[in-house]
Amino acid sequence: MALRARALYDFRSENPGEISLREHEVLSLCSEQDIEGWLEGVNSRGDRGLFPASYVQVIRAPAAEPPPPARYANVPAGGFEPLPPPAAFKPAAQQPEPFPLPPAAAGYPFPPAPYGGSYQPSQGSDDDWDDDWDDSSTVADEPGALSSSYPDYEAAGGGAAPGRYRLSTRSELSLGSRGGGHSAGHPHPSGGGGAKSSATVSRNLNRFSTFVKSGGEAFVLGEASGFVKDGDKLCVVLGPHGPEWQENPYPFQCSIEDPTKQTKFKGMKSYIAYKLVPSHTGQQVHRRYKHFDWLYGRLAEKFPVISVPHLPEKQATGRFEEDFISKRRKGLAWWMDHMCSHPVLAQCDAFQHFLTCPSTDEKAWKQGKRKAEKDEMVGANFFLTISVPTGPGAVLDLQEVESQVDGFKAFTKKMDESALQLNHTANEFARKQVTGFKKEYQKVGHSFKCLSQAFELDQQAFSAGLNQAIAFTAEAYDTIGDLFADQPRQDLDPVMDLLALYQGHLANFPDIIHVQKGALTKVKESKRHVEEGKMELQKAEGIQERCNIISFATLAEINHFHKIRVRDFKSQMQHFLQQQILFFQKVTQKLEEALHKYDSV
Amino acid sequence: MALRARALYDFRSENPGEISLREHEVLSLCSEQDIEGWLEGVNSRGDRGLFPASYVQVIRAPAAEPPPPARYANVPAGGFEPLPPPAAFKPAAQQPEPFPLPPAAAGYPFPPAPYGGSYQPSQGSDDDWDDDWDDSSTVADEPGALSSSYPDYEAAGGGAAPGRYRLSTRSELSLGSRGGGHSAGHPHPSGGGGAKSSATVSRNLNRFSTFVKSGGEAFVLGEASGFVKDGDKLCVVLGPHGPEWQENPYPFQCSIEDPTKQTKFKGMKSYIAYKLVPSHTGQQVHRRYKHFDWLYGRLAEKFPVISVPHLPEKQATGRFEEDFISKRRKGLAWWMDHMCSHPVLAQCDAFQHFLTCPSTDEKAWKQGKRKAEKDEMVGANFFLTISVPTGPGAVLDLQEVESQVDGFKAFTKKMDESALQLNHTANEFARKQVTGFKKEYQKVGHSFKCLSQAFELDQQAFSAGLNQAIAFTAEAYDTIGDLFADQPRQDLDPVMDLLALYQGHLANFPDIIHVQKGALTKVKESKRHVEEGKMELQKAEGIQERCNIISFATLAEINHFHKIRVRDFKSQMQHFLQQQILFFQKVTQKLEEALHKYDSV
Repeated sequence: MALRARALYDFRSENPGEISLREHEVLSLCSEQDIEGWLEGVNSRGDRGLFPASYVQVIRAPAAEPPPPARYANVPAGGFEPLPPPAAFKPAAQQPEPFPLPPAAAGYPFPPAPYGGSYQPSQGSDDDWDDDWDDSSTVADEPGALSSSYPDYEAAGGGAAPGRYRLSTRSELSLGSRGGGHSAGHPHPSGGGGAKSSATVSRNLNRFSTFVKSGGEAFVLGEASGFVKDGDKLCVVLGPHGPEWQENPYPFQCSIEDPTKQTKFKGMKSYIAYKLVPSHTGQQVHRRYKHFDWLYGRLAEKFPVISVPHLPEKQATGRFEEDFISKRRKGLAWWMDHMCSHPVLAQCDAFQHFLTCPSTDEKAWKQGKRKAEKDEMVGANFFLTISVPTGPGAVLDLQEVESQVDGFKAFTKKMDESALQLNHTANEFARKQVTGFKKEYQKVGHSFKCLSQAFELDQQAFSAGLNQAIAFTAEAYDTIGDLFADQPRQDLDPVMDLLALYQGHLANFPDIIHVQKGALTKVKESKRHVEEGKMELQKAEGIQERCNIISFATLAEINHFHKIRVRDFKSQMQHFLQQQILFFQKVTQKLEEALHKYDSV
Repeated sequence: MALRARALYDFRSENPGEISLREHEVLSLCSEQDIEGWLEGVNSRGDRGLFPASYVQVIRAPAAEPPPPARYANVPAGGFEPLPPPAAFKPAAQQPEPFPLPPAAAGYPFPPAPYGGSYQPSQGSDDDWDDDWDDSSTVADEPGALSSSYPDYEAAGGGAAPGRYRLSTRSELSLGSRGGGHSAGHPHPSGGGGAKSSATVSRNLNRFSTFVKSGGEAFVLGEASGFVKDGDKLCVVLGPHGPEWQENPYPFQCSIEDPTKQTKFKGMKSYIAYKLVPSHTGQQVHRRYKHFDWLYGRLAEKFPVISVPHLPEKQATGRFEEDFISKRRKGLAWWMDHMCSHPVLAQCDAFQHFLTCPSTDEKAWKQGKRKAEKDEMVGANFFLTISVPTGPGAVLDLQEVESQVDGFKAFTKKMDESALQLNHTANEFARKQVTGFKKEYQKVGHSFKCLSQAFELDQQAFSAGLNQAIAFTAEAYDTIGDLFADQPRQDLDPVMDLLALYQGHLANFPDIIHVQKGALTKVKESKRHVEEGKMELQKAEGIQERCNIISFATLAEINHFHKIRVRDFKSQMQHFLQQQILFFQKVTQKLEEALHKYDSV
């Protein structure tokens, strides 16, 4: 049997010799051995060529489907099985590269199960899919169509082939032997557009490098240029815990409520619209998931060193099921909370447009949309908008920054692992409460009921009270079973929602860190080149200055992450415990009611 | 392979053609087909002959051991499995005969799991066994040895072969064709001793008939004779709910505490002695399990229509394990409570001797023992000691009695089924709390712990409080897991202990009802014989009068059962609920402690 692999993600060939892959597509492999992170194979259309090894999963016979990221709603027939050994956690630890995978998979041996997406595995109803995705999915096959909509989606999300570090190293070794000829492999329009060829500091060969794609490299090399309006300025200030984003002087919140089904094309198409009410305007607007998704794409493109919160998972089928809609609404609310809490994201034009443009004003919406899409201050140019402190502490110590970033990297890895584990535990715990715990308490209830029914045969008037009390106790246990089954909605679900959101952030940080690391490397490189007389001091100082800006932004972002993390986990743990306490109090109350029935027996 | 069967109970051959069986012995069967309830086979000593089919279980290859009546301490490796379908309950419903099985099996497709006996399946350490059983088991092979100790143990316990109803019917059909020639098959010494041959009312052919073995038949036929001392008189009075035993004018309780290991033969043998303090003497005595067992044998022999509470199960191995001793003590305390609560049992000489004879006075003990063993007012003669009301209501309506007894029979069947189910449910529920529930809560604790450990890597002073609070929450969930595992001891174990005691009573009643039914049948028979001119009216009236006494006693016993049942189940349900409430309050308190840790974060 020929060696086969399944594509884990879409991949579009951009260079000769590469072939495109579509997610789930099965390919024949020419060899299982990758060549610097690339595999050779034949795709389902018969094209033969290279593709990143990390984008596929080799299929070991018999073809085993990866388990769907099931929430407890999908209870296996087996019911109440013991937890499998945590083998599922292993791959994360085994990954040799720190951040070799695309965002959806970074650090997750199985994809995280965000906001209710796992209630139903995707079954590919294209009609439903189209509606929410008519800007993207249905035109995915047309070359360029995707990139016109989300020119940098992959880059900002961190699509990165393995071996990029090796390739990068090689490019440094073959210093000077290549020019700007690789800009064809550089998909970033602005980063690429404003770039000037530099013979002295090498450009990264690997087009999957986030450092390159984000525009970080171009910026550090001084290739970015653009006019920064005052309104676009972003300030990093020195706070008590180091660099932080200047706070939003006009903080606001935004509620997301009343998801309602709406139709268009005389009812031929239907979709869900959510009512948004931003506190700073008080004006409600209605937005669809595709609007959120458009916004996300804009922001992910624009801000290379900011962790844009991930949206709740897309879902193809069952979009109108109440459970799903309610979960998505909650997910969007969490997302919105993180958006509003972020000083940079909250104030950005595209987001403000999204929050404030009247839903009925189609023209204004399109205008704002076009403006956001034409924004020049994205990627490399985004870094131009950042202003950092001057005076004492204005230049960060490179080594200290590196150590802080390394510390944070270790932290995110550990937090990711524990979030994954907690998510798994919470999921299992919820499942068992819905199935096993409920069943156990209700079996106790049922047995008491049988006893009271048997006792009713006793023909003794004096035991009627006892029989009734036991019957009441039976009902109490039945109710307690239901309480157990209902409880995860109250306490574990919010925990899992929070974890999903944070798993999204944790998946963002590898790229953010990578940009910062790339900048640091450039500084070191430039210093060496100066020592070797290959670079002018002034140029090297420029590089260092720009790297300083990236460092400030990165540390500010890390700081922000910790701040909201402590805030969120504190309040979520409190909420969880409060709900658990309420639950056990309800159980106790039920039992007390039952106990009192025996008083008069 | 030859057909084989395993003996479920001891059986002693008493007639030519029968062979003896020992419990657990494996036999070769000549045929699987029984002949009127008898099977033919070869026992382990090579003797070939007949034995009651109900005393053995045919072994289907592969030889499958019946599952031990496992309490949750014996957790299968599989752990937290879903409850098997209640197939285990079926056989009870399928049994064609109402009471065809010996007491240990009556109504129980698998034996009930009384007082802790299931902590360890019996492994037959004879040394241990000997010690508690030196009066019986070790001499079981000597003919007559067992019967000298417990001449009527089987009878009172209700050892009954299948088909006895059929045999009984046949004996009625072949009326007059047989005389007293079957007294050889009549093992009851007193019933048999005082018996006069009666040609007009047939004696029951089946020596397994409880009606015969209890002496009920002999009494009804007027064959019992003996001098009833005033002190031996037992009164049935008419209470608000019908006939009842006259209350004990000097009610008392008796505590059973401090089980202590004692030795004899210079430490070669050791045993457990329990301290008994009866409230009416206040004098403590020490008794061993074998003393309880001796007493039980006496009482079961003496009182044919009284439900003598069963003792907690014998256990061969591990008798000195604390768990077992504590369980046995609790079981004996329950037993003692039921003994003291019964007006007849509480006042009987053998019990009083047991309660009051100083443990140190070996001579007095033996004297009392001998006296009890020589008691003549057992079996048939016991009925002579019963005096029933005179005046209005002094003769019970036969049909009404029959309907009441039938109603009670239906009640016991249903109660037995529900007790079996509740016991099974409680056992499973306990097992799941000890295993699954504990594990689930502790996994949550562990995941929180991992999260707090990850958070400790964050280098942020301001999150130390949160990390500590999460660590505390982790410990709280760990503790809650332990609370779940400890809980069954507090609430489910007592429920199961109570159920075991009642399952014992329920196993007694078939025989009690059988005696009453046998008496009723005799009355009907005698009436018919009078009509047919085959019996003198006076004789028939005597039969009816004696049957009336049995009816009074039976109804009094039924009444007493209901009274203590309502009392016991009320208090046990209250205790159960109180313990459950306390448990959930403890859990709530733990969670509240954890919640408060976030106040200062």
